[in-house]
Parts: sequence; C-alpha cells; structure tokens
Amino acid sequence: MIIVMGPGVREEEIQLVVDKLKKAGLGVHLSVGQFRTIVGAIGEEKAVREMSLEALPFVEKVLPVTQPFKLVSREFKDDNSVFQLTNCVLGGEEVILMAGPCAVESEEQLLETALSVRAAGAQVLRGGAFKPRTSPYSFQGLEEEGLKLLARVRDKTGLPVVTEVMDQHTVGLVAEYADIVQIGARNMQNFYLLRELGRLDKPILLKRGLSATVEEWLMAAEYIMSGGNHRVILCERGIRTFETYTRNTLDLSSVPVVKHLSHLPVIVDPSHGTGNWRWVPAMSRAAVAAGADGVMVEVHPRPQEALCDGAQSLTPENFAGLAEELRKIAVAGGRFLRRVG
Amino acid sequence: MIIVMGPGVREEEIQLVVDKLKKAGLGVHLSVGQFRTIVGAIGEEKAVREMSLEALPFVEKVLPVTQPFKLVSREFKDDNSVFQLTNCVLGGEEVILMAGPCAVESEEQLLETALSVRAAGAQVLRGGAFKPRTSPYSFQGLEEEGLKLLARVRDKTGLPVVTEVMDQHTVGLVAEYADIVQIGARNMQNFYLLRELGRLDKPILLKRGLSATVEEWLMAAEYIMSGGNHRVILCERGIRTFETYTRNTLDLSSVPVVKHLSHLPVIVDPSHGTGNWRWVPAMSRAAVAAGADGVMVEVHPRPQEALCDGAQSLTPENFAGLAEELRKIAVAGGRFLRRVG
Amino acid sequence: MIIVMGPGVREEEIQLVVDKLKKAGLGVHLSVGQFRTIVGAIGEEKAVREMSLEALPFVEKVLPVTQPFKLVSREFKDDNSVFQLTNCVLGGEEVILMAGPCAVESEEQLLETALSVRAAGAQVLRGGAFKPRTSPYSFQGLEEEGLKLLARVRDKTGLPVVTEVMDQHTVGLVAEYADIVQIGARNMQNFYLLRELGRLDKPILLKRGLSATVEEWLMAAEYIMSGGNHRVILCERGIRTFETYTRNTLDLSSVPVVKHLSHLPVIVDPSHGTGNWRWVPAMSRAAVAAGADGVMVEVHPRPQEALCDGAQSLTPENFAGLAEELRKIAVAGGRFLRRVG
Amino acid sequence: MIIVMGPGVREEEIQLVVDKLKKAGLGVHLSVGQFRTIVGAIGEEKAVREMSLEALPFVEKVLPVTQPFKLVSREFKDDNSVFQLTNCVLGGEEVILMAGPCAVESEEQLLETALSVRAAGAQVLRGGAFKPRTSPYSFQGLEEEGLKLLARVRDKTGLPVVTEVMDQHTVGLVAEYADIVQIGARNMQNFYLLRELGRLDKPILLKRGLSATVEEWLMAAEYIMSGGNHRVILCERGIRTFETYTRNTLDLSSVPVVKHLSHLPVIVDPSHGTGNWRWVPAMSRAAVAAGADGVMVEVHPRPQEALCDGAQSLTPENFAGLAEELRKIAVAGGRFLRRVG
Repeated sequence: MIIVMGPGVREEEIQLVVDKLKKAGLGVHLSVGQFRTIVGAIGEEKAVREMSLEALPFVEKVLPVTQPFKLVSREFKDDNSVFQLTNCVLGGEEVILMAGPCAVESEEQLLETALSVRAAGAQVLRGGAFKPRTSPYSFQGLEEEGLKLLARVRDKTGLPVVTEVMDQHTVGLVAEYADIVQIGARNMQNFYLLRELGRLDKPILLKRGLSATVEEWLMAAEYIMSGGNHRVILCERGIRTFETYTRNTLDLSSVPVVKHLSHLPVIVDPSHGTGNWRWVPAMSRAAVAAGADGVMVEVHPRPQEALCDGAQSLTPENFAGLAEELRKIAVAGGRFLRRVG
Repeated sequence: MIIVMGPGVREEEIQLVVDKLKKAGLGVHLSVGQFRTIVGAIGEEKAVREMSLEALPFVEKVLPVTQPFKLVSREFKDDNSVFQLTNCVLGGEEVILMAGPCAVESEEQLLETALSVRAAGAQVLRGGAFKPRTSPYSFQGLEEEGLKLLARVRDKTGLPVVTEVMDQHTVGLVAEYADIVQIGARNMQNFYLLRELGRLDKPILLKRGLSATVEEWLMAAEYIMSGGNHRVILCERGIRTFETYTRNTLDLSSVPVVKHLSHLPVIVDPSHGTGNWRWVPAMSRAAVAAGADGVMVEVHPRPQEALCDGAQSLTPENFAGLAEELRKIAVAGGRFLRRVG
Repeated sequence: MIIVMGPGVREEEIQLVVDKLKKAGLGVHLSVGQFRTIVGAIGEEKAVREMSLEALPFVEKVLPVTQPFKLVSREFKDDNSVFQLTNCVLGGEEVILMAGPCAVESEEQLLETALSVRAAGAQVLRGGAFKPRTSPYSFQGLEEEGLKLLARVRDKTGLPVVTEVMDQHTVGLVAEYADIVQIGARNMQNFYLLRELGRLDKPILLKRGLSATVEEWLMAAEYIMSGGNHRVILCERGIRTFETYTRNTLDLSSVPVVKHLSHLPVIVDPSHGTGNWRWVPAMSRAAVAAGADGVMVEVHPRPQEALCDGAQSLTPENFAGLAEELRKIAVAGGRFLRRVG
Repeated sequence: MIIVMGPGVREEEIQLVVDKLKKAGLGVHLSVGQFRTIVGAIGEEKAVREMSLEALPFVEKVLPVTQPFKLVSREFKDDNSVFQLTNCVLGGEEVILMAGPCAVESEEQLLETALSVRAAGAQVLRGGAFKPRTSPYSFQGLEEEGLKLLARVRDKTGLPVVTEVMDQHTVGLVAEYADIVQIGARNMQNFYLLRELGRLDKPILLKRGLSATVEEWLMAAEYIMSGGNHRVILCERGIRTFETYTRNTLDLSSVPVVKHLSHLPVIVDPSHGTGNWRWVPAMSRAAVAAGADGVMVEVHPRPQEALCDGAQSLTPENFAGLAEELRKIAVAGGRFLRRVG
C-alpha cells in the first residue's frame, strides 16, 4: 500500500501513520517528495486495507499496489483452469455452447428446445426453474417442478443442465438436479449464497453483477473458492449504462481482462447482454472472437409465446444458423466448436 | 401499452397482434399514422408485459403507459405513509437522524457512540452485526453477538435500533433484536429475502441498489408490500457512476421523484453515498433541504480505528455540529429536527 | 407521438392538448383507457417535439414513436452506403484496417510506422496533427507541420490519410491534407464543426462521444448529412462506465444496432476503446466478428517513447500478428481483408 | 508518480525504468516489497505522465500522487476566488440566483421574464442566443439578434447577462454583449474554445461535461486559467447515468468536492440537472444547502409554449416561491440571498 500524505503534513502526523503500520507488523518505506510525502507499507495489504487511514484528515489517499484476490489470480495458478463436464471440457480448446429457454415452462417446450439445440451443437442445456423477476406479479418459475423437468430432459438428451439458484435455502435442492449451478447477476454479491456454494461439489456459473467491476466479480469468485470449491465459471452478461437501444451493455473487453488476471474460464451471455434477439448473433460471434470459452444463448421454440424474456430469445432455426457461424469463428481463432453426430 | 409496429408492416401482421391482445381480454385501439401503425392495448398492462411481443420481427417496440408498481404508488394511496417508532414518527413533519457505527465492534464502542449521537439529537441507532464485505478476508461482523450488543445498548439508551439482515435464514434472528430491519444495497433484488420481509411485522429500511433505477427500487418495495408488510422506508445511498472522487454518486433527485411517485417515506445515507467523511455534512444538509424524511450517518468514536468504513465515519464532535446545522435547514424547509432534553 | 395524460385528467385539459396538436396541423387520435387517457398525434413528430407538452402539469409523459433521424436511417436508404477511398472501398465486402500513431511526432516515426502497417495489410494511415488533450500542459500535436508530414508520407506510401480536425477554423487546412477528416469523441456534439463538415467534399469519420447514446451519435451524423455531405463513417470508440480496468467500455453491440438502424458504415477503434495494448487484439477480433466494416488501431514503433497514448499502442510486430488473425476472422464471417504485396 | 512493476520483474527491467526517470531529471526511490517492486519518481509528475511507461510489458501500473491541475487548485491559492459582477459579488457570502428562459425568443418574452425574476430576487439574467440542439431540425436560437435582445433587456433591467458561446468564431461577438460567457456541457472539452476564452477579460461560466469527471472539469478550467483568464465559475449540471426518471443525475456531491480541491466558485443548474420542472425546487434547495455559490434556473412565462426545454422551465410564480424558500435555506447555512427592492 502507498499512503499519500496531504499537503503541509507535519512530522508527528507522518510518525503516527508509520507507528500504526509498524504496530501491524508491516515494513515502512518513507519517501519525501517535492509536493507530497509518501509512506510505503511493505507486507500484506489486507492489514492496511482494514486500517481506515483515510479517516485521518492529514492522509490524502491510500493506493493499493496489489490485487485483493488470491485464489482466482494467475499469480496463484498460472495455467488455465479446465473443468470436465459430462460430455465435454470447459476452458480448453473447445468452445462450449449452452442454450435453452429463459424459463422452463413445460416438458414439451423444454424437450423440443433441448433436441433442437443439441442438434445444432449445444453441449449444455440452460433453463430457469427459479426466476428472479423485477415484479412480484410476474411468472416466478416452476421451481422444484422445473428442476425435475430439467433432470428428465437431461436423461433423455444427455445434455448436462445449468440452472440458477436464488437462495441459500434451495442450494441443496438445486444441486440435486443441476450439473452446473448458476448465480444470477442480482445475487453476485449475495455473500451467504456464495459461501454456501463454496461448500458444494459442483461447478458454479457466476454471472457478473449488473454494475459490478471486474475486481468485484473476481472477489465474488474468491468467496466461492475460499470456501473450497475451485470450479468457478465466470459469465459476462452486460453491465448497466445510459444506452437504451440495448438492455445492457455487453462488456466483451472483460473477456481478455479476466483471462489476463485469472486462470478461470469465462463465458458470455449475449441474450441478457443485449436483451434483443436481433443483436444476439453478432455479439455471440464477437464473444468467441474475443476468446470466450463458451457462449450461453436463450432459445425458445416460439419466442412470442415465452413466459419470460421472449424478446431476447432465438428461434431454433436462428440458433442453428448461429452455431454454424460460431464454428467458423472458433476455428479462425485457433479453437473449435464440436459438430454433432 | 402501446405497440409500435415496424415500417412496412403488413395487414395480417397487425391482425396477429390484435388477436393476441383480444385473446388476453384486452381492448384494442388501432391508429394508422403516416410513418407507423400503432396498436393501443386497453386494460391491465401486466398481460401485455408477459406477451413478449417484441419477439415478433414486425414489432418495433412496446411502450408501457402506466407504472408497473401498485401498492407503493400515490395512485393507490394519496397521503404520505407515516410510521410510528418507539420514540418518534417517521414520514411526518419531524426529520429523523439515524446514526451509529458501520459495524458493531464492542459494547464500549457502541454505547459510547450511542450516547454521543443521542445527545446530538439522533433518534435511531444504526450498527451492523452482519456485514456484507467485498472480500471474504475482511471482518464480517460480530453476527448474533452484535445483535445482542445492539439490544443491550438500546435498553440503556432508549434508542430504537436499525440493523441489516443479509439472508432469508437470519430474518427471524435479526427481527428478534432489531426495531427496523435493513436490506442492504446488494440485496435490493434478493427477491426471496424481500418476500420473507413481506411477512414480518417490523418496518423495513430498503436501500437502493448500487445501480438500481428508481422504478426497480420501488418494485423491490412492492415485493415487500405485496407480502403484507406495508411499512417500507426507502433509503437513497448513491448509485454507481464513472466519478471517482466519491465512492458513489448520491442521487438526491431521487428524493423528490420518489415523493412524487410514492407515499412511502425516504431517507438518505450520505456516508455510503459519498464514502468520505469530508463530504458527509454538505450532503446531509442537501438531503434535508431536498425533502428527505431522515438522514442516516455513520459515526465512530475513533474513525481511524474502525474495523469497517472508517474513512466515511464522522467523529461524535463532527456529528454534533452537523446535527445543529441540520436543525436549521429543517426549520427553513418547514419541518423540524428534535432538540434533546 | 403518444401523449400520456396524468391520472385524474379533466376533459378541458385533454381538449387543450388536442387543440394544440390540431393547431400545429397534426391529426389526433384519442384513446381513453382504464388507467390513462392517451392522445396520439399523427404527422411529423418534429412538431410535437417542439411543443414542450411535458410542461403541462396534467401531462405525464410524451413518448416518441419514430426515430428523430432521417437521412442516416435505413428507412431513407435501404442499401448499405459504400465509399470509395483512393485504394479501397469502405462499407463493402472488404474489411479495412486503419493504423498509425496516436500523434505524428516526426517524419521518421510516421514513415517507419506507415511502411510497417502497410506491409501488414493496413489500407489507411491514421495520425494526429491536432491533439485534444485533457491537460493544457500536455503535447498538443505538431499541428500544420504534422499535416504536412502526413501528406508527405501518403505520397511515399500510397496510403490515404485520416486525421482529426478539432475546430471549425481549421477545417479548410485539415481538408487540404487529409483524405478522411476525423471528428473526435469530445467534438461529436460540436454542432458548428458538424455543420462545417456538412459542406465539405471529403468522407468524415465521426467518433461516438464519450457518453453519447447511439441515437445522439446518429443525430450528429444527421447534422453532417443535412448539410449535404453524405459520406459519414461512424466509429465506435468506447463509452464511459464505472469499470476501471479499461479506459472506456468498448460497446461492440453498437455495431449491429447501427447496422440495423442506418445504412452508414461503422468501424471500431479498440485502442481508445480499451486504453491498453494488451486488450487491443482480442477486441479487434471481436469487432470484425461483430460485423464492423473496419478497425482503427494505434501503432507506434516504440510505444514506450510515444508522446501520446503509448500505453494503448501496438508495436509493428504485434500489429502484423493481429492483421493475420483478423484476416481469418473476416473470412469466417463471409468478408475479406486484403493481403499485401 | 508511483510505478508498480509487474510480478516476476527482472533487475534489468527495473533499471530501464530507473534510467528513463533519471534521464528526465527526476529523483528515484526504489522499494522492493514482498509482492511487488515499486519505483517512486520524485519531481514534476508531468514528466512521468508523458512517458507512456505502461507501454512496457513489465510495468503493471502507474499511479499519480498529485493532482494534474495547478492554477485551479487550493494548493495554488488558498482563499476562495470572489468575482465582482455589475450588481453583486459571486463566491462570497451572498448566494446568487441566475434565471431566465432557455432560449431568447422575443423581446417581450425576455423582458417579461427578466422583470419577474428580478422581482423575485435574481441577480443575473440567463438566456440562450446560440442553442446547441441534438437535432439539426430543431430551433437553433436567434443568434446575433438574440444577443442584441439580451443587451437591450439588460439595459432596461440592470441585470447582467449570461449567455452561451458555442464556437471559437463567435467568442468576440458574444463577449460584446454578454457579462458572463457560458461554455455548455457539450463544449467542456472543446479545447480551442477554452483557449480562446483564456484570452478574454470576462468571467466564464464553465458547465461540467455530460460525463466529465471532476478532475476533467477542473482541467478544463485550468485551460482557461492557463491562458490568463482567472475568472472561472464552475457550474454543475448533472451527469449521465442509467436513471431515466431524470434527464441527468445532478451530482451535488461535486459541490463540496470542488470546494475542497479548488478556490473557484461553484453554482448549480437544476433545470438541466433534472430536466423536469417538478424536481427543480427540491434540487435548488439542496444545492444551496450543499454550499453552492449560486443557482441557475430556467424560467419561462408560458413553459408550454417555449421553443426549447419547456418541460424543465418554471413559471414566474413558481420561481418566486422558490426564491423565498432558498432565502431561508441560505440563512440557515450562514449565507444570504438578497431581497429585492
């Protein structure tokens, strides 16, 4: 940590800061410049972070030197983390397509979708059983019944299933049915839920919060990993900006940034990222070209009848066309997207 | 709802939309303009919201006409909601000061703070027992022990206590000790928690989410109210922007906006709203002048030793000075802030 | 336009709005719903936009139905606009690389860069002679001397030149030397400058403003086109958000959105969009995959000695590698990027 | 400046950075920590800012220690800058009201407004002759004719006049008529215009840009001051966020922040800051309570007939009521707002 003292700081004020740092077991490095005096703290930054030195009127600012995350960092683990799913490997050379409806509505709807996305090349089936909805009057998902339908369709299609858990309470229930447990954007900093998932033996798909910085997102992953579960898949899904033509602004630059900072795999959700089926194909292609390890897309057999987010859902036909495009982009980027048998 | 059809829409496409609306029991109003055809849906907007009409390629956009909230709306209840606390009334003519440390650290720290803020005019004691922290390695609060200390200090000072609940699980526990139960910004859309609090017989202090629109904030209140608990206190605490001199951007315009749209009381938290004790007095004054029903301020006897958020905590002396200033602003605005006996 | 009247609106208030619309020559369509009365105005929206109906206390909101832009719209011109440059065509099947230093520093630096980027496949040379700098104490560019160097290097390499104009005054001067005249993000709403460029017979590269919506960006293009110059190239360069790992947030979704709304070509500037050379390759690939008609990249022979924005400049070697990658992505997307020699 | 070297940095890489700094005449301070090596540069930060050290792959980040502004800083000038206008002093104990129409439309409109706002206590008349409009098809102002009307009404009422200049070209013309020359938000980083105004002998009212940080805003003031004109009045007018109930988010925390960093006076424009007459009174009161040196409000005799921004204009009656409220708030904050007559 670097502590920048205010202009006109006095000797005894500097000493006070130095003493505090030394008392916390930190080394101290003093540098008196032309305009500012700087105190460098040598050792674990955590100790300084918890000192509230900015509360002192003669301290101007405190600048962190290292990242606050450890287990998620490439400094902790240099090579990419790779997770084995039932039928494929995430984080390796293969680009993984995850697809399915926003919400599970019925067995017919889910099975029809699953068969079509599998035929197009998807390796994972997505579908919401518990739905976080802005309005208490909107459809909230089929809940446990939805989980059962997901499991049934998995059995019929062989596609592993990713579905969202919204609450610490239902982690056990969801984990019973899901192959990958998803944390939604609104729960990215639901720390109790994160801790609970840290004890789970399932991969976690962690969506970036609506206005989360990359650092906060990685710190959320750190919560899960510090609990013992190292299988975290990061999912970029757009952040909130002033632009209104898109529901969110898909921040694809987070893909190379996260790849640089962390060893964890990153996928992209262009459906929530744009909120409009018209922009999903272009942004899916861009995600793969940016180096994402996978893309998660909403598909519904009849989007205009969807109980949730139909406006951002592709038809099965559009999805099949998109998968074909992504296959080429993946190869152009030195990776591959499996063709179906 | 207004459905704007795309350019070059065909007769049968318009008919398809009209039929869908009629099937849902809605009245239909067609208007063919020079550039666009517009379909007006008459009746409950909820029905249209769930139709995903934007999924149709020939539908350009769907514009809501009414607000999605009901119980929180002034159209539902015209006069201001007023809540009786142990020692004061919130939402009436009196402006309420809530003050205390970010985190409960010890009985001494809490009692010292409580006595000093009570002497300055605070009516409610705030203090965190469960602390949402970005890092899993930071101090997470004294948890149940903290709740007990809050209750003990309440008994000694007569100040009702507001404290945060972070999880559906601990609602019962927190409610046992707290007079007002707080939902933090990161949990504003933790819908399971909102539902649980809708069943509680305690006032809820609902903080605005880090990047929540006013509409989403009111919808979160709607969740609580639709569960039966109508005592919701809204708390503006700043939103996330690109500015870095302040931790958040305190959006004081939300005060008159919410007062216009809703009958619920609104308070302001300038401590989290700015993140720096230097800006807290000015923004507290501004909050009262803007018409807030109360101000919640972090106070710590020795901010530079605080285990959490010391940089934004006032000393008891600064708080006493601020309370005096707020007293004058309140009177200038036709309200009052109680003087202590 | 749709005028939504407030709750409890009276007969004579509705009549007042209707009369105003009729007086302005508009058709009127009245729809009395369960919760709101709606007045539809039929005809040119411009007339309603200028009426300030929201100033009336009984008007709740005014919703536009059509887009405010005309000449830039696909409704005005359905097929893609394609512009012939000296050596290539922009907006067609070919993806165009524009590359060069942030600022022109010397003939040697510029020529060395130009030769290297041409060898890698760039078709257009970029370089700043007039530099908009946040600080008055920073290097402000070589100005006219820089323009002359650009022209000299163009003559030696055959690469057409794009360079920024910052001021109405210097439009003539810049246009004398430049093949494409660039408007920087900070000048996107410098309306006098836009008008001046509307009278110019050169293609204009219009960068998106730092916090401009897509609609405002297109309206800035409309300013230029309404002056008579229809050769506008749009350039996405990132918008301002709360994220700090990147200098801006590159909004690649604006590419498909603009392609949908407008016939104008769109290119992407990942150098300013990210502010860090590390993220430029991934975002360049993503831009091409998203459908951009070109990519503009900063290249400097020795970035760590650059007088401006060295942190976001690629070395010639890195650029050559990137061009090779982009060539594959372009082909995968059904387009091409010319090979040199 | 603090240069943080990347993990695993080598001896010769550190030496390269040290050599560069020494060559630029800077002192160097080396600190080898547990996780990172840090190089402190002692001397003028400007030299380091222009070095593009982040372009080196082994440099992780470069952290500034001092502010980039000089003349605007409180370190340069400790006491508040106070500017004498014709009839009042800005920046002192008095809070100044500036009021008038968005656009000058006619002599009658302007005079009627001027007389009413003067009667209510306004000291300065605002009115736009050159109007920056998002659409080329909107009313663009009466231009020189508008300036003449402003001067005529000033002569009749004694109120000094503030009006916007949009272009370097017209600075002389505007300055001939205006008492205070305004730079609009869209021109805050029009550096040629800023330089031109640096040579003017008139106070400049500098609006904060739509998405400008406080630092950028102060750097824009630095441009003007570095040209020789030290009379800069800063004007907060809201920044762009995701919230849609207000046109912008008025960032009142910028008032205490700027007061802390700079000696320049700060006023607030709640009309553009909110975009809705309903929220103007509350935000005007809040501005005064936050410590603003003045408030600038749009007033129109008949807002619903305004040619520009009627939705955010107060009627003369509403303005008179507001002035009365502000008078009380000013006194409560230890300042005053002059009573008329």
